[in-house]
Amino acid sequence: MSEHAAGSPAVQDVYPDDVAHCYGCGRLNEHGLQLKTRWDGDETVSVYTPRPEHTAIPGYVYGGLVASLLDCHGTGSAALAGYRAEEREPGTEPPLRYVTANLTVDFVAPTPLGPPLEARGTIVEVKGKKVVVEETLSADGVVVARGRVVAVRMPEAMASQG
Amino acid sequence: MSEHAAGSPAVQDVYPDDVAHCYGCGRLNEHGLQLKTRWDGDETVSVYTPRPEHTAIPGYVYGGLVASLLDCHGTGSAALAGYRAEEREPGTEPPLRYVTANLTVDFVAPTPLGPPLEARGTIVEVKGKKVVVEETLSADGVVVARGRVVAVRMPEAMASQG
Repeated sequence: MSEHAAGSPAVQDVYPDDVAHCYGCGRLNEHGLQLKTRWDGDETVSVYTPRPEHTAIPGYVYGGLVASLLDCHGTGSAALAGYRAEEREPGTEPPLRYVTANLTVDFVAPTPLGPPLEARGTIVEVKGKKVVVEETLSADGVVVARGRVVAVRMPEAMASQG
Repeated sequence: MSEHAAGSPAVQDVYPDDVAHCYGCGRLNEHGLQLKTRWDGDETVSVYTPRPEHTAIPGYVYGGLVASLLDCHGTGSAALAGYRAEEREPGTEPPLRYVTANLTVDFVAPTPLGPPLEARGTIVEVKGKKVVVEETLSADGVVVARGRVVAVRMPEAMASQG
């Protein structure tokens, strides 16, 4: 991750409190993964170091975590893209929050358990309430999974439950 | 779930110890979800009740858990299908264990947090080392997600790391 990315704000840190409880990326979920997603130039990046129990078989990360990271990296990337498309900074009003409509994961190689996992996203479409993100997940610089997320703006009815 | 399904053995209970640590479905992972997958006639079924912290926004289940359940239900279903294709009971030698090559999830409706979630699988292909499973995930009888898993026999090199 470049210094630029490390210095830019994580979109999850500006989610309104009532939509900041996601197990994967909510800053208010103390049990969760607390994924953070930032711009790095025209790509988005999130880094997560799995816990020892996140095993598939000993030595490898289970697929559900890989899918979870790509899912939340996708919705975080979609929010960043939504703000950029509106030429606004993340955190300005009104807030943008996305949910996943479709997730596809190709498990390219076994994911070693130990090193930080870096998700990178490329925004391939921003159209109305829909954002499409193509992603890679890498360990030690080697791509272990490829993902694609179709994200849509969170329905008002969902957010108002929060 | 029918009484038949409840009475049939879960495939995860006969995985060899060295491949029974998966966070999603390993009986030896004390922190994990411990998903159990059984036959119910020609369908496979797994049931899991999310923990309170598995939120997306309050009141709903986060997508990563939905993906995790469909992923592990897929590999468990693949193992059951592999044994059946060889006209063997789960747990007979040699053991069959699968990993996911591709996972697709369509999030059909928001998943309520509270009721048990039931994953059901239909085996659509068993060919060599590959099994394809089409899945639904339901809450209170309503389908909230559809999934498709392409599973392949676990490479010997992975299992021997265990």
